[in-house]
Amino acid sequence: MSLTANEVNALKKAPPVEGVLPAFHERWSPRAFAARAVRAETLKKLFEAVRWAPSAFNEQPWRFLVGRKDDATWSNILSTLAGFNKTWAQSAPVLILGVARVRFSHNETENAYASYDLGAASAHLVLQAAALGLGAHQMAGFDREAARQAFGVPAEYTPEIAIALGYQGEPEGLGDATLIERELAPRSRKALGEIVFSEWGRAVQL
Amino acid sequence: MSLTANEVNALKKAPPVEGVLPAFHERWSPRAFAARAVRAETLKKLFEAVRWAPSAFNEQPWRFLVGRKDDATWSNILSTLAGFNKTWAQSAPVLILGVARVRFSHNETENAYASYDLGAASAHLVLQAAALGLGAHQMAGFDREAARQAFGVPAEYTPEIAIALGYQGEPEGLGDATLIERELAPRSRKALGEIVFSEWGRAVQL
Repeated sequence: MSLTANEVNALKKAPPVEGVLPAFHERWSPRAFAARAVRAETLKKLFEAVRWAPSAFNEQPWRFLVGRKDDATWSNILSTLAGFNKTWAQSAPVLILGVARVRFSHNETENAYASYDLGAASAHLVLQAAALGLGAHQMAGFDREAARQAFGVPAEYTPEIAIALGYQGEPEGLGDATLIERELAPRSRKALGEIVFSEWGRAVQL
Repeated sequence: MSLTANEVNALKKAPPVEGVLPAFHERWSPRAFAARAVRAETLKKLFEAVRWAPSAFNEQPWRFLVGRKDDATWSNILSTLAGFNKTWAQSAPVLILGVARVRFSHNETENAYASYDLGAASAHLVLQAAALGLGAHQMAGFDREAARQAFGVPAEYTPEIAIALGYQGEPEGLGDATLIERELAPRSRKALGEIVFSEWGRAVQL
């Protein structure tokens, strides 16, 4: 079975709901990327979306290192990835490392919302990517300490996420049968009643 | 000075950028809410957007308790808020408590991405709210332990965020001069070059 990126998107897309922004339903996390560079002006739009994320005390604890295929930053990020992620992420034209400032800059006390706010900023990034026809895949599977060393990340910051980004490629390009199967599997999520409660564990009536 | 919600939105809106989803620029965190209920079908759309957020191992660690004005859940959430937040959030028709499952459900080991993923899910919620003309204000200022007690939240979950949600009201309704001033202050963010790097601390050229 050989499918194009558009055909795969049709498999992955969640059922649309009137009034819900299409980006929420269209976003998913591909592993197959096309050999097509992402223009600087396109990347700029992704980070423009990131900039306006909300954060505790407007700290904006998010920092992103951006590497483009075969530059030193890209190679450094790739080198920190877990073996499994390396096999497919090496085809991504853009690799990004998301870093959180874990202390507030105004007084250097712990920021308990550093991860939370970085998660929101990354959500902006990947949703805006989806809106521009790009795919982004966030990865927990990388070596944080190696990333800290590779980039000289100061102690008050923590590398928390690696992101592969690019235009989608055809699943066949992944080579490995298991990866291809995952690329074609429908997305699944809990039902609303499992995550939205009136009392603890009791589904709210919506 | 008396301004309508639409006039305030014009002050708050970030400059639009072609190709960037308007919700990123239009979303902000109001404190003044109109005395207008939010329909269940509208809330359902917000949580439909939440559902499709990405998460580590597709754990979907997010849970949300939803209270509507003067029901027991709403009152319980209000009672946990810090004094300053209580003064304005009591006018919100909807109060939400965001809770993260901090252990993976498949093996009960620590989920280091619980906060990160809850942050992404909440980002979906507040962006979808903005797209529907609603305002949402996330608050770190609440008593987590009181929230745990009030709702009987099990140990493997942590209450992490309170959210006031509703249709915007006129700033004058806030009464307090400082709150009104904040409600009218333009939003500010770091420049791209301060958050997007090629090497650590060095702005990427976009």
